[in-house]
Amino acid sequence: MGVVIPLDGSPSAPSIDPLLRLTSAGMERVNQLIFDRVGSDVQLIPEIARHLVNSGGKRLRPMLTLACAELCGSQGEGAVKLAASVEFMHTATLLHDDVVDGSEMRRGKLAARMLWGNEASVLVGDFLLGQAFKMMVEVGSLHALDVLSTAAAVIAEGEVMQLAAAKNTSTTEDEYLAVVRGKTAALFAAACEVGPIIAGRDRDEQAGCRSYGANLGIAFQLVDDALDYGGASAKLGKKVGDDFREGKITLPVVLSFRRGTEAERAFWKRTLEQGDIQDGDLEQAIAIMRRHRAIEDTIERARHYGAMARDALALFPDGDMKDALIEAVDFCIARTN
Amino acid sequence: MGVVIPLDGSPSAPSIDPLLRLTSAGMERVNQLIFDRVGSDVQLIPEIARHLVNSGGKRLRPMLTLACAELCGSQGEGAVKLAASVEFMHTATLLHDDVVDGSEMRRGKLAARMLWGNEASVLVGDFLLGQAFKMMVEVGSLHALDVLSTAAAVIAEGEVMQLAAAKNTSTTEDEYLAVVRGKTAALFAAACEVGPIIAGRDRDEQAGCRSYGANLGIAFQLVDDALDYGGASAKLGKKVGDDFREGKITLPVVLSFRRGTEAERAFWKRTLEQGDIQDGDLEQAIAIMRRHRAIEDTIERARHYGAMARDALALFPDGDMKDALIEAVDFCIARTN
Repeated sequence: MGVVIPLDGSPSAPSIDPLLRLTSAGMERVNQLIFDRVGSDVQLIPEIARHLVNSGGKRLRPMLTLACAELCGSQGEGAVKLAASVEFMHTATLLHDDVVDGSEMRRGKLAARMLWGNEASVLVGDFLLGQAFKMMVEVGSLHALDVLSTAAAVIAEGEVMQLAAAKNTSTTEDEYLAVVRGKTAALFAAACEVGPIIAGRDRDEQAGCRSYGANLGIAFQLVDDALDYGGASAKLGKKVGDDFREGKITLPVVLSFRRGTEAERAFWKRTLEQGDIQDGDLEQAIAIMRRHRAIEDTIERARHYGAMARDALALFPDGDMKDALIEAVDFCIARTN
Repeated sequence: MGVVIPLDGSPSAPSIDPLLRLTSAGMERVNQLIFDRVGSDVQLIPEIARHLVNSGGKRLRPMLTLACAELCGSQGEGAVKLAASVEFMHTATLLHDDVVDGSEMRRGKLAARMLWGNEASVLVGDFLLGQAFKMMVEVGSLHALDVLSTAAAVIAEGEVMQLAAAKNTSTTEDEYLAVVRGKTAALFAAACEVGPIIAGRDRDEQAGCRSYGANLGIAFQLVDDALDYGGASAKLGKKVGDDFREGKITLPVVLSFRRGTEAERAFWKRTLEQGDIQDGDLEQAIAIMRRHRAIEDTIERARHYGAMARDALALFPDGDMKDALIEAVDFCIARTN
């Protein structure tokens, strides 16, 4: 566990608090809207949906929609509805992911599929996706609809890609990045891009926010990958080694496999491809990663995308919201300390 | 001008010489083949083609094809023909590029269009592309044909994208990277990928070489972008400031524009968008870039792709060719010193 060293002589470690504070009024409206829209006469739906909604996610994606809309001068109901849509899309993805991965836990709680079964999880996911689209349609921006529905297709494509790449320890870094662009960065990018769209801002602002979101999304995922092998992940409610136990091929694995010896490659194939995991294997995995600097270099790669995210916002005039969004990037990277 | 600091205590600066040496026998056959295949009864064709062929390019792309084939155990005629095809594709692109950009110089000599005109440049480019495909067909690998013809389409797509993005100083880094992936990285990637294909090696080797080539290509282009604003570019036969005078939006410009003041943005718009360039403007451009660390950070971004290229090759067994390919990456980055 390292110590966060503040950069540029700033008095404290980078924090997500400014972003939380600046979006808190809007997020209250988003949360209210989410509760309103998970209602259904089919009782199972609000039951499962409330389980998810209460499960303590940070709601980073809808927060980004509100922040980017406000950065562009919009605080209207449109941004709130698009933000809630983004969160519904995200929740639907989580429900479907847990079914596909056979996950037992989600954010430190039992996954919905363990409580209500796979079928209900798939269908409630579809319901949330439907509600998301209904809300987007209410907003009435065809452009925002185009961006978010394209993201939905790309996310699904990314999941299928991941399915195809699953259990392949010799996945290249480029192939893994393509998966990350689909499963994580696409929604971050869309969540940010609809902010300037709903605010009626021009192409440059849209492209800037999109690029900020996409690169923050990649950095976020790579940091998550690194945390899963030894970062201070307690705050996430996610135990170290989840990815390993699920046989997920993430960047620390990609780098370790490629840089490793034949014996080490045999270890990764046994544990991740064949799923034959024994006592001490996680410790062994982390030791191999440390030997090849795979976790450090995963974070180093994340820094690159973080730098791109920061530059993407540079065109916007200085102000609290821009500062908060940039600090969120630094916070994301600093989580690995 | 900095001094190249050897990494890891190695005795000398990274060099391209090992790659040149290891591929020299094959490259002699490639060069012979190139001369054989530019023959035509239409006299203008060999005339223009010889001008290009003699114009002193480093032939890095065909060299990569030979190196990746040999890395995978193949030294046959197939690799030589594919390498020559790759160089023809590259030369065709240069011919067409110069017409599109209205360039007057190429590698320190008059561009072909200045000597024979735009029409002949376009058509001889088409001829070379045709010859490239004929040679690929002779090799008889449908897979290699697929990879190279896909690259040809992507390159053209990248050029059109660049045309659309041209003169737009607010191009995002992501948008610029998409252009680079098309106009530079696609051919590097294909040049490398056909090596293992012609050697009959499996998916992992193909993906590894492809990823090496794509990331080396991006690093190469970013380094070129940096050199154009003040590196030791004499060796390239390219004068500092070519990109600036042609109004090209490259990464140092993207970063400087985004990080700059309103006055600086007005400067970039006047010089690059409106093409109103006056005495002292290049020096001014470089000063602005230095102020925002835009050149340094362009090189820093190149390092990231260089690191990815190195890791992409890590799966191959150690040996001289692998070492030479990895040293080529370091050489590419060290050119900026």
